[in-house]
Amino acid sequence: MTGSPLTIDGDRLWRTLMELAEIGAYHDERTGLRGVNRLALTDADAEGRRLVIGWLREAGLDLRVDPMGNIIARRPGTDADAAPVVTGSHLDSVATAGAFDGCLGVLGGLEVVRTLDERGISTRRPIEVVVFTEEEGVRFGTDMLGSAVAAGRIPLAVAHDLIDRDGISVGAELTRTGFAGDGPARFDPPHAYVECHIEQGPVLARAGLSVGVVTGVQGISWQQVTITGRAAHAGTTPTELRADAGIAAARIVLRLREMVDCAGYGELRATVGHLAVHPDLTNIVPARAELTVDLRNPDDEQMARAEADLADYLDSLVGSGITVSTRRMARTAHVPFDARVQQVIAAAAGDHGLDQMSLLSGAGHDAQEMAAICPAAMIFVRGEYDGISHNPREYSTPEACARGIDVLATALVRLADE
Amino acid sequence: MTGSPLTIDGDRLWRTLMELAEIGAYHDERTGLRGVNRLALTDADAEGRRLVIGWLREAGLDLRVDPMGNIIARRPGTDADAAPVVTGSHLDSVATAGAFDGCLGVLGGLEVVRTLDERGISTRRPIEVVVFTEEEGVRFGTDMLGSAVAAGRIPLAVAHDLIDRDGISVGAELTRTGFAGDGPARFDPPHAYVECHIEQGPVLARAGLSVGVVTGVQGISWQQVTITGRAAHAGTTPTELRADAGIAAARIVLRLREMVDCAGYGELRATVGHLAVHPDLTNIVPARAELTVDLRNPDDEQMARAEADLADYLDSLVGSGITVSTRRMARTAHVPFDARVQQVIAAAAGDHGLDQMSLLSGAGHDAQEMAAICPAAMIFVRGEYDGISHNPREYSTPEACARGIDVLATALVRLADE
Repeated sequence: MTGSPLTIDGDRLWRTLMELAEIGAYHDERTGLRGVNRLALTDADAEGRRLVIGWLREAGLDLRVDPMGNIIARRPGTDADAAPVVTGSHLDSVATAGAFDGCLGVLGGLEVVRTLDERGISTRRPIEVVVFTEEEGVRFGTDMLGSAVAAGRIPLAVAHDLIDRDGISVGAELTRTGFAGDGPARFDPPHAYVECHIEQGPVLARAGLSVGVVTGVQGISWQQVTITGRAAHAGTTPTELRADAGIAAARIVLRLREMVDCAGYGELRATVGHLAVHPDLTNIVPARAELTVDLRNPDDEQMARAEADLADYLDSLVGSGITVSTRRMARTAHVPFDARVQQVIAAAAGDHGLDQMSLLSGAGHDAQEMAAICPAAMIFVRGEYDGISHNPREYSTPEACARGIDVLATALVRLADE
Repeated sequence: MTGSPLTIDGDRLWRTLMELAEIGAYHDERTGLRGVNRLALTDADAEGRRLVIGWLREAGLDLRVDPMGNIIARRPGTDADAAPVVTGSHLDSVATAGAFDGCLGVLGGLEVVRTLDERGISTRRPIEVVVFTEEEGVRFGTDMLGSAVAAGRIPLAVAHDLIDRDGISVGAELTRTGFAGDGPARFDPPHAYVECHIEQGPVLARAGLSVGVVTGVQGISWQQVTITGRAAHAGTTPTELRADAGIAAARIVLRLREMVDCAGYGELRATVGHLAVHPDLTNIVPARAELTVDLRNPDDEQMARAEADLADYLDSLVGSGITVSTRRMARTAHVPFDARVQQVIAAAAGDHGLDQMSLLSGAGHDAQEMAAICPAAMIFVRGEYDGISHNPREYSTPEACARGIDVLATALVRLADE
């Protein structure tokens, strides 16, 4: 493996992370901490993008914005014809986020470029830092949206037509915020893709390590379940005459927990994050309930079995005035990352003197979309507090962040000189 | 018992019911029926009130609006000093209502007065027809609000300060809609109170009867339960590290159903009509859940035991990051109605040649508030489809409505001649 290990400026990286976290910041009453709320293509997201674009321009990068709002910042290589090495992540957040999810990968890429410039290091291949649009999927219902369009999995027109709960479309918000760019929606296949991200889980912290090499992303299945029952008066309607959609919803929530606890589906995780009843009034038996089911599994067969058994359970609830319908929101199979890119990352970590481990990602990431068009892998950075994320308590130390970006820098340069 | 049975004009009564139901009408997609949405002190409620006020004025009644927005329409008696006999009900509805709940009692009172005028019948005591404000309690969280203020149970200032989900107060809405009247907030004790209402349950229909004499109202307990857990990433957070407020909420929903089914709490009914999670996003473990618990029981001791056991269950959920808090929204004990007024109603029904039965009310009614300041009882009218109510399918036949108001007319005249 060629190229000396490259050490970035951890203090400068930290300052950019903290400055970006001011945009969309809010006071979280429960934790007393400062949280971040920067849902994709809101005013806050647009403001965060403009801040980062300013930094990317200051670093001398050539910028383009594609029709999906993905921002591609390019540092030229010495070989004008060579396919680039790409790094990146996202700036959009969930509604109750911390400072690190996504931002570490983007600002880490920026920091790598700054370091290369300061050291006068050129690479054969271009290095690109990408900001992908709507990675979280919480606003428009499909996660990794920007990278999925870039990789050609989701057509641009389909992505543009997705709407949020208020009926506002991705396309309209891209135009409104000034991020409806032009040029091709699909990326030319890069030479490789490497993304640094916080782990969002407890594995590295429990192992006492700062960084990990990600072997792949577990399968993800998102469904919306709608239950219809019958509205009725809470005081007068005998229990046996009720068709209570809320009770059916509660049964589904607990059934999913039973499926997780029974250990019959491998390493299944299940979450009902969205749950609502209608008409949602104290003294009316719910006529309708709506919930989302988020399943994760590193084993595609176990996932398929969990989905099938859930479908059977939903069928078993039908009758006596109750009907159940489902709508597929998203589904991605287990994505294994490229073995050689993992080796480059592992070697870089070793050259930085870092103990490391390989681990699977529990969350979806833009890297899994890029993996469809080029060799890709990820670097995970340890999170404190058991890696809690999507929560204002999300925290990685300045040291852990710097070590992760050290490894990113070294790996990117080595891949860019291939 | 003096006074001949008085038969009202059922066709005219029906026309007023149907005309009023046009106000706040909506097309219900699920049933294909026309529903009514006239939440208290909305524009639709105000429009309905103005329509009914017009009819009450045409009938020659003296109107006043009290500071709680209750409308009192008075037909003088021959004895200026005699306490009035009062009938009435409410015009506000739940969000998914039919044409009969409340409206039958008010328009029935109007029809009684029209009939007395046409027949040239005078009574010793005045007869008053009252429209009570916010009986449903779904907008401002406290049911029987107008009658509770009139009866002195809830202070006027407390009622005025109640707010809806948007933070808008009762007082502000009374002023905005023009129904902030003057004069005393508390009623002088009437001689008696009789209210005719749809049963909202299956008892009369299953017994094959048109009308029933109501012996009282079962106890009602409303609580809001708030569960706090911890937001976390759905993909990465191991199940054992989660504090999922949504799962705790689901457990409560099902526990209540178990309590009902176990038959250990007498004729307990339990409903979770409101259920919401926060942040309510697909891939985030709910950090908070909120639900309402509506308990009904005709036996005060059984009710108290159910409440205590529920409180114990809520306590048992606390721990591992989950906390539970409750807020009392409303509580009324079992209210027995006046035996003699029940006798007057039963005799009137008999004189009309109607088979009848006595039954307990499952729902709360303004009559239970009036029962605190005067002898009171109710007439129930049979509902079709097992008495479904708070639903666009709510329906009572023109014949059943007319028979109920026949009984009301005869009972009111007899009480007004005492």
